[in-house]
Amino acid sequence: MLNKKEVAKAYQEIQQSIVEGLTALDGGAIFEEENWERPGGGGGRSKVIQNGALIEKGGVNFSAVEGKLPDAIKKAFKTDKEDFFATGVSIVLHPHNPWVPIIHMNIRYFEMQTGDDTLQWFGGGIDVTPHYVVEKDAKFFHQQLKNTCDQFNKEFYPKFKTWADDYFFIKHRQETRGIGGIFYDRLTPANTELSWEQILEFSKAIGNSFLPIYTELVKSGREKTYTPAEKQWQYQRRSRYAEFNLVYDSGTKFGLETDGRIESILMSMPPMASWVYDFKAEPHSKEAETLSLLKKGINWV
Amino acid sequence: MLNKKEVAKAYQEIQQSIVEGLTALDGGAIFEEENWERPGGGGGRSKVIQNGALIEKGGVNFSAVEGKLPDAIKKAFKTDKEDFFATGVSIVLHPHNPWVPIIHMNIRYFEMQTGDDTLQWFGGGIDVTPHYVVEKDAKFFHQQLKNTCDQFNKEFYPKFKTWADDYFFIKHRQETRGIGGIFYDRLTPANTELSWEQILEFSKAIGNSFLPIYTELVKSGREKTYTPAEKQWQYQRRSRYAEFNLVYDSGTKFGLETDGRIESILMSMPPMASWVYDFKAEPHSKEAETLSLLKKGINWV
Repeated sequence: MLNKKEVAKAYQEIQQSIVEGLTALDGGAIFEEENWERPGGGGGRSKVIQNGALIEKGGVNFSAVEGKLPDAIKKAFKTDKEDFFATGVSIVLHPHNPWVPIIHMNIRYFEMQTGDDTLQWFGGGIDVTPHYVVEKDAKFFHQQLKNTCDQFNKEFYPKFKTWADDYFFIKHRQETRGIGGIFYDRLTPANTELSWEQILEFSKAIGNSFLPIYTELVKSGREKTYTPAEKQWQYQRRSRYAEFNLVYDSGTKFGLETDGRIESILMSMPPMASWVYDFKAEPHSKEAETLSLLKKGINWV
Repeated sequence: MLNKKEVAKAYQEIQQSIVEGLTALDGGAIFEEENWERPGGGGGRSKVIQNGALIEKGGVNFSAVEGKLPDAIKKAFKTDKEDFFATGVSIVLHPHNPWVPIIHMNIRYFEMQTGDDTLQWFGGGIDVTPHYVVEKDAKFFHQQLKNTCDQFNKEFYPKFKTWADDYFFIKHRQETRGIGGIFYDRLTPANTELSWEQILEFSKAIGNSFLPIYTELVKSGREKTYTPAEKQWQYQRRSRYAEFNLVYDSGTKFGLETDGRIESILMSMPPMASWVYDFKAEPHSKEAETLSLLKKGINWV
C-alpha cells in the first residue's frame, strides 16, 4: 500500500525543484513563499512570482490537506465516506512574451475512507495554451508527453490526450483552451495495469517532465520581439483562459464552492486580460491561424 | 391584460432613447448596431460602443424572443409550460475614467404558457460599481432609485435594495460587487398591490431613470484626472466584476447553459481587467476605504 505521507513528500520535493528551476529560468524575480494551514487539517505552501523577467504572473502551489470529508465533496462524489486526504502540486504560469505559452500542470493524490475502507486514486495533467500556436513547439510538447506516458502504459497518451481535449474545452466559445496535452483522473491499479507504486512513479514522472518541457518552450519564444498588437492579442487569449477557469474548471469551481483559500484557487487568473466585443481575426492572419487550431482531435505526434 | 408586443415596443423605445442620450454624453464614438434573429423565434438589437471618449466599452441591448420553452429553462423554473416570451433591455457600461462608476441596468418581462394558462412577471434593477466609492454620488444614486420606487410602492425601495445587496454579492470574496442599487424579480399584481399596467409603468420608470442618473454620475467623475496607479486599481476592480458575472450572474449562467448569443451575453465583460495575487490595499488609502464600503446593509439614503 501507498503511504500518503510519502506521496505528499514526493510532491513537495517536486514543487521545490520546479521552483528552483523556474527561478533560474526567469532570472528576474524570485518566488514569494506563503505557508498556510487549513482550519480542518493540513495546509500548504504557495510559491508565487509576479513581474519576473520571463513570467508576468505565476504560481507553483503544494498542498496536503485532510480531515472530515466536507458535505459538498460527499455530494459531488456521491459518497458517504467520512474522512479524506488530498495532496497535489498545481502550476499556472503566464509569461510576458506572447510567443511563450501559458502552461498549466497538476499532479494530485486523493484518499477517502471510513475506518479501514479506503477509496484512493491519482489524477493530473499538463496542458499548454499558446497565444500563437507554433507547430514545432506543439509537436515537441505532445511528443514529450507521449514519451513519458509510453514508459508506463502505451494506452495512456492517446487516452489522456483525448481526455484533455474534452476537458479543456470552452463550450460557449466552441474552442479548446489551447493545444491540450494530457488530463487523467481516478487512476488506480484496476484501470492502469500498474501497481500503486508504479502509478506514483508515473505521477512523479509527469511532475518531473514539467521543467524540461517548459524550458524548451520558453527557449523557443522568449527572445522573439512582439508588437503592441500582439500583446493585445495575448490579453484577449487570456480572457478565454479566465472564462474557462471561472466557468468550467472543476478545481476552481470546487474551491469556490467549498470556501477554499481564495488567493490559491485564483492564482491561475491572468495578470491582465481583455474582452473585445465580437472580435474577428483578419482572414489568413496568424491570429486566425491560431484560432483554427483551437479544436479537438488534432494529432500532434 | 398586458399586450406583450406593447411591452416589447416600450422597451425598444427605451433602448433607443438611452442610446441617443449616451451617444451625446460620450461625444467621441457611436454605438454600432447589430440585429440578430433567434433560430427558435424572435431576435434582438445589440448596440455596442467601444473606445469612446467617455465609455471604454459598453452595450445597450434589446431583445424580444419567443418559442418553445427550452428544457433547460423548464428545469430551472420547475415548470412544464410549453411556450415562452421574454423581452428586456440590458445595459453595462465600463467607463475609461476610474472616477466614473461601472453601471448596469436591466428591465425585463417574461411570460410562459400552455394554451391559455399563462404565468408572467417583471424583473430588473439598476446597480452601480464604483472603482472608488464617492459618498455624495452613492447617496445621490440611491436617493434617485428611492424616489422612483416610492412613486409606485413605498415598500419597493427597501425591499429591492436589500435584494440587490444579496444578489450582487461575490461570495468567495465576501464583498459586494459595488454599492448595490435595486434588484427585483417575479413582480406581479399579487405581490405589488399594482395592476399589470402599473407594474409596466414602474418598469418603464426604472428604464427612463437610467440616463439622468448616469449623466449625473458621469458629470461628477469624468473631469477628474487619474494616475496610472488609479487606472491599475480600476483594472483590478473590473476583475471582480468579471468574477461575479462568470461565476454568479443568473443571466450570464443561463445564457451560457442555453447556448445563447455569446457576444451579447458577454458584452458585460470588461475591456481590460487585472488579477494581482493577494493584493493588500495600503491602510487608510482610498482603495482601502472603497473596500470597506463593499458590504451589505449600508443605508445610503
